Amino acid sequence: MRPVALLLAALLAAPSVPLSADAGAPLSGFSAAGTAEQRALEARFDALLKADDLREWARRMSARPHHLGSPGGRANAEFALEQFRAWGFEARIDEYQVLFPTPRVRRVELLAPRRFAAKLQEPAVAGDATSGQHGEQLPTYNAYSIDGDVTGELVFVNRGIPADYEELERRGIDVRGKIVIARYGGSWRGIKPKVAAERGALACLIYSDPADDGYLAGEEYPKGGYRPADGVQRGSVADMPLYPGDPLTPGIGATADAKRLPREQAPTLTRIPVLPISWADAKPLLAALAGPVAPQPWRGGLPITYRLGPGPAKVRVQLAFDWKLVPALNVIAVMKGAERPDEWVLRGNHRDAWVNGAADPVSGAVALMGEARAIGELAKAGFRPRRTLVYALWDGEEQGLLGSVEWAEHHAAELQAKAVAYVNTDSNSRGALGMGGSHSLQRLMNEIAGDVRDPKHGVPVAERLRAFDLVGADPAERQRALDRAELPLEALGSGSDYTPFLQHLGIAALNLGFGGEGHYGQYHSVYDSFDHYVRFMDPDFAYGVALAQVAGRATLRLAQAELLPFRGQALADTVAGYVDEVEALATRMRRDTAARNRAIAAGAFAVAAPPDETRVAPKPRPEVPHFNFAPLRNAVERLRGAARAWDEAAARGTGAAPAARAKADALLIRLERALTRDEGLPGRPWFRHHVYAPGFYTGYGVKTLPGVREAIEERRDDAVEREVVRAAEVLVACAARLEEAARALAE
Amino acid sequence: MRPVALLLAALLAAPSVPLSADAGAPLSGFSAAGTAEQRALEARFDALLKADDLREWARRMSARPHHLGSPGGRANAEFALEQFRAWGFEARIDEYQVLFPTPRVRRVELLAPRRFAAKLQEPAVAGDATSGQHGEQLPTYNAYSIDGDVTGELVFVNRGIPADYEELERRGIDVRGKIVIARYGGSWRGIKPKVAAERGALACLIYSDPADDGYLAGEEYPKGGYRPADGVQRGSVADMPLYPGDPLTPGIGATADAKRLPREQAPTLTRIPVLPISWADAKPLLAALAGPVAPQPWRGGLPITYRLGPGPAKVRVQLAFDWKLVPALNVIAVMKGAERPDEWVLRGNHRDAWVNGAADPVSGAVALMGEARAIGELAKAGFRPRRTLVYALWDGEEQGLLGSVEWAEHHAAELQAKAVAYVNTDSNSRGALGMGGSHSLQRLMNEIAGDVRDPKHGVPVAERLRAFDLVGADPAERQRALDRAELPLEALGSGSDYTPFLQHLGIAALNLGFGGEGHYGQYHSVYDSFDHYVRFMDPDFAYGVALAQVAGRATLRLAQAELLPFRGQALADTVAGYVDEVEALATRMRRDTAARNRAIAAGAFAVAAPPDETRVAPKPRPEVPHFNFAPLRNAVERLRGAARAWDEAAARGTGAAPAARAKADALLIRLERALTRDEGLPGRPWFRHHVYAPGFYTGYGVKTLPGVREAIEERRDDAVEREVVRAAEVLVACAARLEEAARALAE
Repeated sequence: MRPVALLLAALLAAPSVPLSADAGAPLSGFSAAGTAEQRALEARFDALLKADDLREWARRMSARPHHLGSPGGRANAEFALEQFRAWGFEARIDEYQVLFPTPRVRRVELLAPRRFAAKLQEPAVAGDATSGQHGEQLPTYNAYSIDGDVTGELVFVNRGIPADYEELERRGIDVRGKIVIARYGGSWRGIKPKVAAERGALACLIYSDPADDGYLAGEEYPKGGYRPADGVQRGSVADMPLYPGDPLTPGIGATADAKRLPREQAPTLTRIPVLPISWADAKPLLAALAGPVAPQPWRGGLPITYRLGPGPAKVRVQLAFDWKLVPALNVIAVMKGAERPDEWVLRGNHRDAWVNGAADPVSGAVALMGEARAIGELAKAGFRPRRTLVYALWDGEEQGLLGSVEWAEHHAAELQAKAVAYVNTDSNSRGALGMGGSHSLQRLMNEIAGDVRDPKHGVPVAERLRAFDLVGADPAERQRALDRAELPLEALGSGSDYTPFLQHLGIAALNLGFGGEGHYGQYHSVYDSFDHYVRFMDPDFAYGVALAQVAGRATLRLAQAELLPFRGQALADTVAGYVDEVEALATRMRRDTAARNRAIAAGAFAVAAPPDETRVAPKPRPEVPHFNFAPLRNAVERLRGAARAWDEAAARGTGAAPAARAKADALLIRLERALTRDEGLPGRPWFRHHVYAPGFYTGYGVKTLPGVREAIEERRDDAVEREVVRAAEVLVACAARLEEAARALAE
Repeated sequence: MRPVALLLAALLAAPSVPLSADAGAPLSGFSAAGTAEQRALEARFDALLKADDLREWARRMSARPHHLGSPGGRANAEFALEQFRAWGFEARIDEYQVLFPTPRVRRVELLAPRRFAAKLQEPAVAGDATSGQHGEQLPTYNAYSIDGDVTGELVFVNRGIPADYEELERRGIDVRGKIVIARYGGSWRGIKPKVAAERGALACLIYSDPADDGYLAGEEYPKGGYRPADGVQRGSVADMPLYPGDPLTPGIGATADAKRLPREQAPTLTRIPVLPISWADAKPLLAALAGPVAPQPWRGGLPITYRLGPGPAKVRVQLAFDWKLVPALNVIAVMKGAERPDEWVLRGNHRDAWVNGAADPVSGAVALMGEARAIGELAKAGFRPRRTLVYALWDGEEQGLLGSVEWAEHHAAELQAKAVAYVNTDSNSRGALGMGGSHSLQRLMNEIAGDVRDPKHGVPVAERLRAFDLVGADPAERQRALDRAELPLEALGSGSDYTPFLQHLGIAALNLGFGGEGHYGQYHSVYDSFDHYVRFMDPDFAYGVALAQVAGRATLRLAQAELLPFRGQALADTVAGYVDEVEALATRMRRDTAARNRAIAAGAFAVAAPPDETRVAPKPRPEVPHFNFAPLRNAVERLRGAARAWDEAAARGTGAAPAARAKADALLIRLERALTRDEGLPGRPWFRHHVYAPGFYTGYGVKTLPGVREAIEERRDDAVEREVVRAAEVLVACAARLEEAARALAE
């Protein structure tokens, strides 16, 4: 039936690996009969997914700018609302009032050694029907930059992360009183002004280097898909790792009458002005720098000698914003569950764009709409979900997950009681399936990735994922791909709407999307258009349909399962790996700190200084002590045992009595909740999950076991063992819940 | 006395490490009294070294082009001859007749999709007094390219090494019948046309990318020291890993009456035409390519999208040379040893340049001259070396070590009987001391590096070398630097005149030079001028003097030692490390081959193909068998034991009877010879050393245990165990010689 896959499985000699699902084996959470029924349902679901629907919705929804608070945004919300209703959902718009600054003044000028005024405009290009809609486009800017008008010498800070400032310090370069210019990339953008402000800079410019997403990556738009000279990456720079959502209403829904922080007290606004610019605007600034030549890894793709400064380039940055509240319009569409109406399976994608957003977010939103339409059609033919389906199209994601966060905060109690899981998508393109999420759902996602076929290659997307690792340049990665029994889920940091569900409310989450084979240089620019999308991303929406198949299966299997398909082994194994990592991190830091202190004491930094540059020795750091990781190790052992017990029970679980299954499900729904603590993470109580969090200094990038890991990384040695105990406690609580669920099934 | 160093040693808590020489301890090969005498001699020697001498000679010798066969070259040879004679040496010019093609026709034209004719000229620049000497300058070209006139589509091949062609094959790109364009770097240049010809290309262009030594590395000359838009790297492309020297007289001196190969049979000429070009000439060619975007690591610093082709760029390359014999003039200056006239210590640097060559080779040649002048002065004051000193300024090094190879081949028997060691230098600059050579001399060089002080920092150059490792970004390197007892010598590949001595004749060799802190973008161009040198390399010739101190000490200690300062431990330890490496290499290749074959069998390469590019699966390779490395392991054990015995004997050896020491010295002189075999390496009999060789596919880059390592790398599995035995035999022979020397001392 599936000759390619069967041949492959034989050749790989790893028969346990479900590269392609065995159509005869039951799905996790389904009996044999239930599996047959579910597969039949999915076949009907697949047949109802139409690439032409996705294309037409995408064309329509990206036809004009539709950012938060815009007429285009409202029109799209109302269009989607109508559609959901037509498909048979109970649909509504949930509205919040959120802080959304838009620019009144944007000015960047080079004052010395010559004069230059940055253009700060993205021109219309030939063959792109929407790039000239200047009247409705948001200007190029970073949301939640504060107002300011500052003048100072310029310093090039590479990616603008802490390690870059250490390099500058080693060269005697201090950014206090200076304006810094950073390249996009290497961290989430909001980290750059945050660190620049911590170091005393007056303002932060962020530019798109052509080595990253411009001509060195591929031909410039419209010849190719990559960022042209004047293209700018907009984006939020709120301090999202502190808390996302509306800056004025942390922890509560931003309803019209919510108690708000005065803007001056909102801690997630930047402390200095920040503005993104194109490389065409950055080049004269960078070319005007003197000072040391930038270290080799800092050099980008401009035809200049990258220098650090400070000066003689002197720059004025002037920014002023209109600090208004605007409505965030979340479209919520519900199909009530027939058997378990109070168990909710959530499925969301954001709806708002920075400009036209054909890729981001429309490509993901239309996949979600395709799923909803298909389910609506099934419902019209008699299908009723066992559990309640909640579809959401979020607003204000681009500014910092505003719509989803405010909704999740507003409905926190109900969600914590009822939410089974949240399935997220965002931008989609052609390529590999990216799968991130709660590791209790890894088995589920492996089964799905073994079922859904890559539209171009006809093989299961799981097989394609494995193929990428098998053909890569890294032999160790190849060996791991050959050895492993399941495709790993990536741990989730932040950057899309799963964050409030997973990390604030402790709801198991998935984040899904295809990508890697589009020509993606239009991110957050006016060039993220329908015309771009159909040339360079997913021309025939085939991967849009594939995404609907994947996310639709995840939603439907969670909704229809006879016993929820959460499993323990991947979670336990993955967490055990994280414990290995944090122990190794401490060991490495201890060894490296000692060696570096010896080098400092030996005066090596002065002796190694080149003749024509300054070198400043770093200060010695406290030696890193040995820590007691035993509580975590013991907790992992308990979790492994519980996982084994639960997975064995679950394998036979669909045969248990309905009441036993209902009891187990109720425990499983709260499984991810066990990994959270009410007091949250140190210094950022909004983030409650103690296994996955966005890094305080990486932004989108995940830190696993964040309390422990960041305490070690940030050399808060006193906090490490306290965080070890806290992390161990959530693992034990999780283990206890699995044990309880296993007992419930046995009753 | 040396407070900084003493403090350092205490802090490093590694008291065995001679970061700074203990002035009280005897030098290797000297008694306590002899040490005092030697140190006094070296103090007088140092006092006679004058930066102003070096500067004046450098100015004079780089004042006009002085390549092989040029009037400027002859004038410099005669000037040096006079100087050596004036300093009291018996000096002469040893002349050979060598093949040296110079261009008659050079033409590179883009014929499609538009027309462009490459300039192939380096213009004069302001502030550089010699860059306009067009009448005497050699044009930009690669020596030993064959004649040709070919037209074909262009393909970009990155560095042009075998791995790059594998990447192209994976994309379905075949260079047969095409013209390739490669970036300089990543291998010795001669590898690029060699591999291109093996793959069926019609011609090879090599260009200097600005990411490597142009504006991305630093400001362009004359503003900074880096290669300007029209700068070209000349250089030889003879197949030097087969044999260096005159292509027509392999293995014999190219005397006027030597039997010569017909040129058509000379195997070291290229098989296809090859020409180096500037980035200004390369940019229109590269920009005219279509086809897939080049892989990320292939992209350089030009503001274009690097594409692979083939075509539509169509290029004509037309080259014709004047294939004449010219005289190579080696200046040889001898100061006869008073006690051991038949033990020769050789000290050489090349004299010829590609153009004016202020850095390459004049900066090293003037250090050598400074040493010779100082020794001449000492001799005038009554000093006589114990052993004979032979100073050499070689001609024709740039074309492929012509002068040194022909001289060494011509004098092979005498050299093998008499040569103690050969001390080489080449270009010099400011920065770190590079020390490469025979590991039997590692102890000697550590003692010297502990004595000579960095002219800018005032600390021993050994301390500065260690400091570089201590402050680098790699913690593992830092730890190794803290742990190791001696600074390691780099193993020698090729690229300068030590090769005929070390690898053909089995004479222990050293290669020394400071560098890393000059702004070195003028390599092999007309911009390697005195004006460049004194702005960007070693402005006050302080590192020139330091090099004379280092190389002068090496020469003088070898000449004056009461017992030759060869030691066994570093040799044995280093070779043991090489054995670890080749075993690990075989293990890794076995594992990687098996995994890759599984990936191929699984069809992963087809499945991983992107939608808009071709992907071709590689062919499976034979699985790598297990090899018997036991003979090498046993040989290493024997060598370790012999080294221990010899080093212990040598530590007391200066107290032995003169006859015993003479006998031991006679054995030590032949120690390195034991590491060679008459039949040479597989396929390249000229290279006889079985521990160090230039790689057949790396060129200058060393391959240690080359017979074994290249058999494994090149998958000549049948040859591996034979090469293991051969390598083991030379190690055993070397051990036997050390054992014999230890016995001799005990007599």
